[in-house]
Amino acid sequence: MPPTMRAAIITAPGAPDVLAIQPRPIPTPGETEVLVRVVGSALNRADLVQRAGGYPAPPGVPADIPGLEFSGIVDQCGPAVTNWAPGDRVFGLVPGGAHAEYLVTDCRTLARVPDSLDLHTAGAIPEAFIPAHDALRQAQFKRGERVLVHAVGSGVGLAAVQLIRALGGIPYGTARSAPKLDAARALGMEDGWIPERAEDNAPRFAEQVTAATNGKGVDVILDLVGGAYVAEGVRALAMRGRLVLIGLLAGPSANVDLRRVLSRRLNVRGTVLRARALDERIEFTTAFVQEVVPLIAEGQLRAIIERSYNLDDIAAAHAELGGNDVAGKLALHIADEALS
Amino acid sequence: MPPTMRAAIITAPGAPDVLAIQPRPIPTPGETEVLVRVVGSALNRADLVQRAGGYPAPPGVPADIPGLEFSGIVDQCGPAVTNWAPGDRVFGLVPGGAHAEYLVTDCRTLARVPDSLDLHTAGAIPEAFIPAHDALRQAQFKRGERVLVHAVGSGVGLAAVQLIRALGGIPYGTARSAPKLDAARALGMEDGWIPERAEDNAPRFAEQVTAATNGKGVDVILDLVGGAYVAEGVRALAMRGRLVLIGLLAGPSANVDLRRVLSRRLNVRGTVLRARALDERIEFTTAFVQEVVPLIAEGQLRAIIERSYNLDDIAAAHAELGGNDVAGKLALHIADEALS
Repeated sequence: MPPTMRAAIITAPGAPDVLAIQPRPIPTPGETEVLVRVVGSALNRADLVQRAGGYPAPPGVPADIPGLEFSGIVDQCGPAVTNWAPGDRVFGLVPGGAHAEYLVTDCRTLARVPDSLDLHTAGAIPEAFIPAHDALRQAQFKRGERVLVHAVGSGVGLAAVQLIRALGGIPYGTARSAPKLDAARALGMEDGWIPERAEDNAPRFAEQVTAATNGKGVDVILDLVGGAYVAEGVRALAMRGRLVLIGLLAGPSANVDLRRVLSRRLNVRGTVLRARALDERIEFTTAFVQEVVPLIAEGQLRAIIERSYNLDDIAAAHAELGGNDVAGKLALHIADEALS
Repeated sequence: MPPTMRAAIITAPGAPDVLAIQPRPIPTPGETEVLVRVVGSALNRADLVQRAGGYPAPPGVPADIPGLEFSGIVDQCGPAVTNWAPGDRVFGLVPGGAHAEYLVTDCRTLARVPDSLDLHTAGAIPEAFIPAHDALRQAQFKRGERVLVHAVGSGVGLAAVQLIRALGGIPYGTARSAPKLDAARALGMEDGWIPERAEDNAPRFAEQVTAATNGKGVDVILDLVGGAYVAEGVRALAMRGRLVLIGLLAGPSANVDLRRVLSRRLNVRGTVLRARALDERIEFTTAFVQEVVPLIAEGQLRAIIERSYNLDDIAAAHAELGGNDVAGKLALHIADEALS
């Protein structure tokens, strides 16, 4: 019998109670892959959507094990791997399968965990800081620019606020509750708003943003919300502003003012990390290692963990994140760091 | 009395008959400017909108003289100008004022007219090839890519088709009549369509584009039309496709499928040339000189002039362009080339 590991399994599409911890074979690393013993991870909204049946894993990824980020210890290296050795402390993103005791991933999609950081904290970092960093890079964000972050109390949102400050920008934000705005303010957010709703139920924030930026608008919007937020965002952007769409919580379409897109020379782009090819995953990991990990090591950036769950309690973690009251991340402890 | 020139004047907002030829003082070149004796120009849709009162000239530009492109002969140089001398044959874009016997413009926003080209033809080139080239650059167009051009029978559209072929791409197009598609096919368009209208009056071309590109869609769309074309364009784009919006003939808003923007990682951006600051006008002129003018000199690219008018007949030219049946450009002869 091959050696097995414990994994969170989506036994059928449905509510949190479809999740079960079941044994699975420990995967074998390919030529350029490493086998990682997972110590930490965290929950993300995509896990909930995948559990409900709406976000199937890409080809080559375990279809029934959720989990997009991990920290852990290198256990075994594929024959062509030269940059890692067993025992190395690593973290990174995977397109799925992180909510299990072991995973395999390409050796160029891993980052070294700074000595100052414990692995349980490290496990809640990749799917917050990598998407935030990648979105800022896609927006060609520059020092001194103003950036509006929607869903600013989310894991990605709170990472973005810290990153924007650390890189010399001015972060603004929207959220649906005062505690989420407070969490963002504590991390450096300049100003933030709970969008009012107009008669047509569309969110309103452009006027507040314009007033807070001396009439100019923001240079960049990181939009994790989509829907009518995109249309209102177009009204909140400065000349040559860029809106990066990275989520669709508020819906799949927007009625966009093209006159403004044209006359202000705006740029609206969509992005997803999960479906990217290996060369692009290597690219964003490299950028993370060079530009973000040093700031984490210095303590300038930190994971904001609202609560931690053990792997056995993953259904409860899903239920809590689904309640929309979480500011920051729900961490998942897969194993003890010391265990080896 | 200062020396005067003849200029097309918008005497009041309105129909073509508000245009009159009137005397104006010949402008004086500033420090880094040259005075150009204009020989050729052409009509553009923006001239019509400006005449109707809808597109005021930016600050520092004659408010009542239309005209965005010119060819001519350098007449006089400002004290700091070292790159031009009287007698040089030049062409370029201005934010207004080209439909007159003289204009001043910064010495870094001019290109030298190739010897093989007469000035009357050269006058119809800048506002066709510079916007097409600039839009392709903004789209980060690469050799081998497929590009869909809306309003492909327009001056910019026919320039884009030639440029895409010359740069190693595959041009497709839409237009509202068969003769316009024929004109584009003669210049290298791979395939083209007159968009059918759905029940909601929205144009339909995504299905045809998808079929013509083996199910992939196009990499780039140059959209001179806007409105519902943008929404349909989002459905016609390939993975990581880019839509560059450069006109709004079909209306000022679009209901965009954000799910597709996200999952295909699309990029929608608006652009206008006229309002750009001097440094950007220098930049696009430099790119035009380096990458497009040599292809014009070799005869790989050519102006498509449907008809030519003398300055005195500018009202008739406005009326014809307003009729929407023009494939290519209406040239304007301001003076004889030989005259000097």
